[in-house]
Amino acid sequence: MTYNLLIENIKKHIDLSSSEADSICEFFKLKTIKKKEFLLTQGTICKFEGFVVKGCFRTFTIDKKGNENTLYFAAKDWWLMDIDSFMNHKPSDLNIQALEDSEVLIISQKDKETLYAKIPSAEKLFRIMFQKSIVAWQRRIIRNHSLTAKERYNHFVEKYPKIASKLTDRQASSYLGITHEFLSKIKKQP
Amino acid sequence: MTYNLLIENIKKHIDLSSSEADSICEFFKLKTIKKKEFLLTQGTICKFEGFVVKGCFRTFTIDKKGNENTLYFAAKDWWLMDIDSFMNHKPSDLNIQALEDSEVLIISQKDKETLYAKIPSAEKLFRIMFQKSIVAWQRRIIRNHSLTAKERYNHFVEKYPKIASKLTDRQASSYLGITHEFLSKIKKQP
Repeated sequence: MTYNLLIENIKKHIDLSSSEADSICEFFKLKTIKKKEFLLTQGTICKFEGFVVKGCFRTFTIDKKGNENTLYFAAKDWWLMDIDSFMNHKPSDLNIQALEDSEVLIISQKDKETLYAKIPSAEKLFRIMFQKSIVAWQRRIIRNHSLTAKERYNHFVEKYPKIASKLTDRQASSYLGITHEFLSKIKKQP
Repeated sequence: MTYNLLIENIKKHIDLSSSEADSICEFFKLKTIKKKEFLLTQGTICKFEGFVVKGCFRTFTIDKKGNENTLYFAAKDWWLMDIDSFMNHKPSDLNIQALEDSEVLIISQKDKETLYAKIPSAEKLFRIMFQKSIVAWQRRIIRNHSLTAKERYNHFVEKYPKIASKLTDRQASSYLGITHEFLSKIKKQP
């Protein structure tokens, strides 16, 4: 059941035989995370890539003024990691915290390399997944530049209603790049 | 000479034999673009990926209020495209315009698919390039959230001095997501 969700996710990106999909799944181990626990903390090196099978995570950085800035949320059927720390073997600027009791399938950095070496279609799979990820980042930068804060808030709530419903105003505003007070003002507008 | 720059760029990402690198290069055609000419215009579908061998490009969107928002600049040794339009075969939200007389090596969408099919290491190459691209987008979102406009301006000028020197204040401010007037104010600060 847990692995079925991963297989379905993979098959959204590329055509794979069942045996190839099973081989990919063998590299992933299930990890259970309680609400408010951290999967990654700022300053440590991210040595894993994760796929959420239950629950929801928030990925955020704490800047030098002590403010939390949310980079993204990852709910069921989403991937998560700090790709910068993972690729460049450098201490992460990010925290990844469970917003509720969650489960995540984890592949270690070492196993990821073995996966690429042993299963050639994994290169195509992650090439396509990363392309889609760039599209999402590009769209977000365009929205940040060309939409008002209220339009960005409405877009977020309409596109990710389940995630939005789990958040405090402080968490949502730190994702939108606005203050908590400004979000309260926006929400009161007709 | 032109193709040497592409080969050197590819070899920064993965180890390749010379014959593999040559085979990849065969898919790229040189295109010359005069200053102010467009490689892509908003509303058309992006059917190419490009690698800049000379000059510099600006990628921007014009929002519904008529404001220009710059997504990124691409100088010599950089890749450029609208990955959203290219992947999803949808009209682009972007314009790609030459800031000066430029040359770019272009691979068509059809040839890109053939490249992946014929040269298996191309999957790894672009998987790694796309990972690096995500790292750059992630860092930019973090900077946008956690740095002041002045700090973002200083970072841009220090990291990309050659590009910054080619830009008008209006172009630089549209990249930083601030008004032209605010950039003038920042530049006057000590």
